[in-house]
Amino acid sequence: MWIVPEREIADLLTRDASFDAVEKVFAAMAAGDAYNFPVIREAIGHEDALYGFKGGFDGVGGTLGLKAGGYWPHNLEKRNLINHQSTVFLFDPDTGKVAAMVGGNYLTALRTAAASSVSIKHLARTDAKVMGMVGAGHQATFQLRAALEQREFEKVIGWNYHPEMLPNIEKVANEAGVPFEAVELEGLGEADVVISITSTFAPTIMADHISAGTHIACMGTDTKGKQEVEAALLARATVFTDEVAQSISIGEAQHAIEAGLIQEADVHQIGAVINATHKGRTSDDEITLFDGTGVGLQDLAVSAAIVRMAIEQGVAIEVDF
Amino acid sequence: MWIVPEREIADLLTRDASFDAVEKVFAAMAAGDAYNFPVIREAIGHEDALYGFKGGFDGVGGTLGLKAGGYWPHNLEKRNLINHQSTVFLFDPDTGKVAAMVGGNYLTALRTAAASSVSIKHLARTDAKVMGMVGAGHQATFQLRAALEQREFEKVIGWNYHPEMLPNIEKVANEAGVPFEAVELEGLGEADVVISITSTFAPTIMADHISAGTHIACMGTDTKGKQEVEAALLARATVFTDEVAQSISIGEAQHAIEAGLIQEADVHQIGAVINATHKGRTSDDEITLFDGTGVGLQDLAVSAAIVRMAIEQGVAIEVDF
Repeated sequence: MWIVPEREIADLLTRDASFDAVEKVFAAMAAGDAYNFPVIREAIGHEDALYGFKGGFDGVGGTLGLKAGGYWPHNLEKRNLINHQSTVFLFDPDTGKVAAMVGGNYLTALRTAAASSVSIKHLARTDAKVMGMVGAGHQATFQLRAALEQREFEKVIGWNYHPEMLPNIEKVANEAGVPFEAVELEGLGEADVVISITSTFAPTIMADHISAGTHIACMGTDTKGKQEVEAALLARATVFTDEVAQSISIGEAQHAIEAGLIQEADVHQIGAVINATHKGRTSDDEITLFDGTGVGLQDLAVSAAIVRMAIEQGVAIEVDF
Repeated sequence: MWIVPEREIADLLTRDASFDAVEKVFAAMAAGDAYNFPVIREAIGHEDALYGFKGGFDGVGGTLGLKAGGYWPHNLEKRNLINHQSTVFLFDPDTGKVAAMVGGNYLTALRTAAASSVSIKHLARTDAKVMGMVGAGHQATFQLRAALEQREFEKVIGWNYHPEMLPNIEKVANEAGVPFEAVELEGLGEADVVISITSTFAPTIMADHISAGTHIACMGTDTKGKQEVEAALLARATVFTDEVAQSISIGEAQHAIEAGLIQEADVHQIGAVINATHKGRTSDDEITLFDGTGVGLQDLAVSAAIVRMAIEQGVAIEVDF
């Protein structure tokens, strides 16, 4: 079996490889060739930790396994370790033997950024010029960096609850040669593409903050009760997601469904757009909304790519297990 | 992190170490200090494989993690690999970082045998002399070997659907210096302890095959629909199990519950007997029945013991992950 330690991942994994893996596995999910298992998520009653497993199987990509780990909120302060800790385990689908173990921290950031990026490629207007960011934390920098590769953006505008964090994303914009401007939420109307990447239990973005023709990727909601955008926005938009079952239960769509504003049938798989079995955006006035909930198959697909690259580049550790 | 490959386990893991680990974790479960997560079990639609995860956390033992793997029915015939394939992953409960990876095949056989053995220690009559076996496959040999250490048995009697397999268990009995005799099911009345380890969907052992005062461990039922003993036997017996929720849904108790012969409250945790919060057997005429369904915490507890021994004996592989 092969081991790729966390310290190797940042040098190995490119945004392109991550994008390709996520795009392919979303397509496989929509084609019925890949599926995610039920998610296990447990508050274990120790260190306030949340721990669990996200598994799946991609019959076409030949990827079977899980990401295990979670959130240890006191890691940074008590031990100078990052709070999100995860590890991916891949299995040989022909035999059930473990095939690889991959550090899951950096790849989680990149695979999450790849998801919004895939949605921008397939749903944003091709002439999009203004990129809007809501959220300016660590994950927001990965999101913006990946998003800027999808269109010829001329400006980034951004809002954050703590404005003093905005320089995080300003730096990313400037490194990509794009000017940055801090705005109020009302100023988001200028954006052609918006990524929302916050962790809140009440909506920040209201329906009238978003203009006709915009594509918005909501990347922060992955738990019952969390909410980034007003439910009315989902009723105005054409709604896409990575996995419908998660979107309507723990994703952004949970609130619009609960309020009866949309039905499950109104939530479409992004993979169907990739496969051209759903038409995607049909006009320049349409609002498209991607509800990115995060699925185990993203982790498995990106990990499989990492293992291939690590073996090629001679940095994978082989263990006779 | 530490890696203990499958090839090392048989030399490292003793029946005593396995027994101690399982007894302790059953006690911790009954004390509310350890719990199992919901089990994931998926027919992945490839190679007819069943794949899944059994996880848990023992706050006292400090053990967190999962066993991943399953059953690949064509492994032996197509690839000369065993059909059950599993791997255990342990995590540091203080940080969420992966701590160890342990080959899970041999340890699964030993931890399953340890469970019935723990039940015999705590529930069988101390003067038990005749050991009865129903089932004579690979797992039956582990069961019998462990059971014979719990009492001064003078004879082993056995029945199997395919009588030509009985020499498997006869060999184990003889190696322990105990004579073996093949019997019909009606002959089981002579046994003071019975272990049933078969995989069937209709009961083999009827209530009147079992005499007053016998302890019976039912180790083969771990799926909805499977059944080893007539439901009426559970109504006659005092029923114990590793985990009540599994016993009444996928264990031997599912049928007696469904038929209304017993209630959930009639199924007791074996750990409560170990902790002396349940009195266990109260008379020499009582039939006690242990419904062993198999829980992830058994695998984690035994794996943690293996890792300690492997480090001590210098056979654990250290990887800077």
